[in-house]
Amino acid sequence: MPTYRLDIAYDGTRFSGWATQPDRRTVQGELEAALGRVLGEPTRLTVAGRTDAGVHALGQVASFTSERAAPGTLRRALNALSGPDLAVYAVEPAPDGFSARHSARSRRYRYRLETASVPSPFERRRALHWPYGFDRDRAERCAAILHGIHDFTAFTPTDGRHRHFRREVLDAVWVEQGDSILALEIEADAFLRGMVRALVGTILEVAGGRREPADFERLLAGASRPEAGDTVAAHGLYLLRVSY
Amino acid sequence: MPTYRLDIAYDGTRFSGWATQPDRRTVQGELEAALGRVLGEPTRLTVAGRTDAGVHALGQVASFTSERAAPGTLRRALNALSGPDLAVYAVEPAPDGFSARHSARSRRYRYRLETASVPSPFERRRALHWPYGFDRDRAERCAAILHGIHDFTAFTPTDGRHRHFRREVLDAVWVEQGDSILALEIEADAFLRGMVRALVGTILEVAGGRREPADFERLLAGASRPEAGDTVAAHGLYLLRVSY
Repeated sequence: MPTYRLDIAYDGTRFSGWATQPDRRTVQGELEAALGRVLGEPTRLTVAGRTDAGVHALGQVASFTSERAAPGTLRRALNALSGPDLAVYAVEPAPDGFSARHSARSRRYRYRLETASVPSPFERRRALHWPYGFDRDRAERCAAILHGIHDFTAFTPTDGRHRHFRREVLDAVWVEQGDSILALEIEADAFLRGMVRALVGTILEVAGGRREPADFERLLAGASRPEAGDTVAAHGLYLLRVSY
Repeated sequence: MPTYRLDIAYDGTRFSGWATQPDRRTVQGELEAALGRVLGEPTRLTVAGRTDAGVHALGQVASFTSERAAPGTLRRALNALSGPDLAVYAVEPAPDGFSARHSARSRRYRYRLETASVPSPFERRRALHWPYGFDRDRAERCAAILHGIHDFTAFTPTDGRHRHFRREVLDAVWVEQGDSILALEIEADAFLRGMVRALVGTILEVAGGRREPADFERLLAGASRPEAGDTVAAHGLYLLRVSY
């Protein structure tokens, strides 16, 4: 069956995450409902990076198979049927066997911190307000430590969802966006659920002087979840892009 | 009486503009109510640039006089009493006789256009979606024409609010913000009501080929309102800063 690739973005504020849930507005639910209406048949999406409630996406990728799809008009129809907080940038034919999830080589996320003492009205729901002590050098050391293959057991809930906890971090870097936004960008072959937010919560403890970089390094060798820091708020997190 | 200066920002989406109106949420209304509670007396604000419903501000300035103000704690109290779409960045003593309105030498506004064919979920209520023909060179010519003193009668409602229509434009320039945002920044000694939005609406006609730059120049010599273009949407407009 012909396979198609969707490139999408969403403001996660009013979605209960990616995955379909009964009686909740989710990205998958809204897109599959729109696809079903346009194609006239139930259509199931496969996604590159499942996002939790409140998490945003700038470059999410999903795929589906259909005998009926007509990419040219489909993009316009999907945008017309979706809320304004969800954008379908492209609908394109994909190679046979393409899966947005299994074909992905890496995912890149960004976590945004707003460091100004008074939060901007324009960063509400877009960045975590963090006007507290933040030693940039210590945060940079954590980013350097992240590179390579580690066991991220300490950075995901112990709910049985994952069985393997080793992931390879291909890039981790702090970037500035304007005067008062500092963001961690992290790229890995794959991510565990909640991993970026637990990493950021732990790095904030290191940057605030409450934990040593050496301890952060120790956690990456398979420590348990309670040993690491808190999971920070969803609204600072963005799925930036997926590489194939 | 001691005079104070407030530096504030707001996301205009959920405000019916700056000026107090009965039964409407306005920036002035919300700030004066907060000041009244903190200072224990009715307090009246003077503002540098009255903004209409939906218009944003990154660098608005207001002033007030009071025998009771204590700037250090006032900023914190005003932020605590205001909605998260309104930020008070500073409360500072100002020179005797300072008026946010009358002491201002110039105001600078920005109007943001989003030119991508599919609008970003993150630019909703932040930029006017304008995926139509837009000749940058023609728009630049309009910006160049704007410099200097003109009669802006054609760019404000004929509702009797203004009696003098000459204003001096000190700067007008198109700037890019990322890949798909193009913004007009315009600074003048003062602005008429609706002036920036009527100018942008008319420049869009020039940039789209429906009006000639020479005609735009002609309008700046005191033509009537119906001769100029439409007033574009409020949500693309930002009061950037005020100079004293």
